[in-house]
Amino acid sequence: MISFCPQCGHPTHQRIPAGDNRKRNVCGTCGYIHYENPRLVLGAVLEWQGDILLCRRAIEPRAGLWTLPAGFMENGESSEDAAARESREEAHAHADQMRLFTFIDVPAIDQVHVFYRGILRDGRHSPGEESLETALFSEARIPWSQLAFQTVRLTLEHYFEDRRAGEFKPRRLLTGKRAKRLVRWTV
Amino acid sequence: MISFCPQCGHPTHQRIPAGDNRKRNVCGTCGYIHYENPRLVLGAVLEWQGDILLCRRAIEPRAGLWTLPAGFMENGESSEDAAARESREEAHAHADQMRLFTFIDVPAIDQVHVFYRGILRDGRHSPGEESLETALFSEARIPWSQLAFQTVRLTLEHYFEDRRAGEFKPRRLLTGKRAKRLVRWTV
Repeated sequence: MISFCPQCGHPTHQRIPAGDNRKRNVCGTCGYIHYENPRLVLGAVLEWQGDILLCRRAIEPRAGLWTLPAGFMENGESSEDAAARESREEAHAHADQMRLFTFIDVPAIDQVHVFYRGILRDGRHSPGEESLETALFSEARIPWSQLAFQTVRLTLEHYFEDRRAGEFKPRRLLTGKRAKRLVRWTV
Repeated sequence: MISFCPQCGHPTHQRIPAGDNRKRNVCGTCGYIHYENPRLVLGAVLEWQGDILLCRRAIEPRAGLWTLPAGFMENGESSEDAAARESREEAHAHADQMRLFTFIDVPAIDQVHVFYRGILRDGRHSPGEESLETALFSEARIPWSQLAFQTVRLTLEHYFEDRRAGEFKPRRLLTGKRAKRLVRWTV
């Protein structure tokens, strides 16, 4: 929600612009329309000798809990770039052979979470600024009760399910408060 | 690019916030950080008795050219909701049996285009406010030279290729000026 025009600094008001059908913040002075849209969060499941790389979060939300490397996609990069960059930043990890894996709608918080799967190039990792520690976990040792986010848990569940079945199938999921229940599809 | 703080209306300046590694517009008065991230465009390939629904654009960019129903995903909706809503708004079309089909990075314009494929429920369609006309096209009659966007062309090419092969395979593509060449992967 915004109160002032980012272009001219004058107050904005909620109204439906011409040709639109929903309320936006519109500047009363210069006419600038402020659109707000869902953000993409990109992450990666990186495997090394059968183990999966996780990061323990140093920052809120969910500080102290474990996550896959992930974060907001930035302007000017591709989704694969974003997943690889987050792996570098959060775990000093180099991602290879990346394939799209889960596409998860989280409408309750206006986000779409997309996870790639790939290989941890050389097995090396160490905590970046946003991580307390990084570690490789076998399926049996994944800290399921200490995972930071539902989309990370869902992605890991599908990863191990597919790995056991011998075939990775990209998945689309709908989650969050607005979904009456969690919905899972094979893409 | 913004010049004034949307929260307090005072001038913003480009600087790297603490704990970040890239320049953002930051308010010198209240400290608000203005993040700008890629936007999701959602669309649909809707089939009816073998034909595909296209819309001729009434608005810029590319007014007068043909497109699949598509537009910016809105806060509070899922990606499938967005593709179905755009189909209703642009073509008064009802989408059924939607499956994720193409996921296309367009980093040159800070967008990700995602197309679902589905069925036009009852064969009915007519132009919405943003369309001059709507029509169903057989593969042979698709107006390839009159398509509005590269991502629409790529999605249609893959759709017909997969339909001929008898199996739809979700695709991830990287396109735009920053890609040295167009890159295509099966997800």
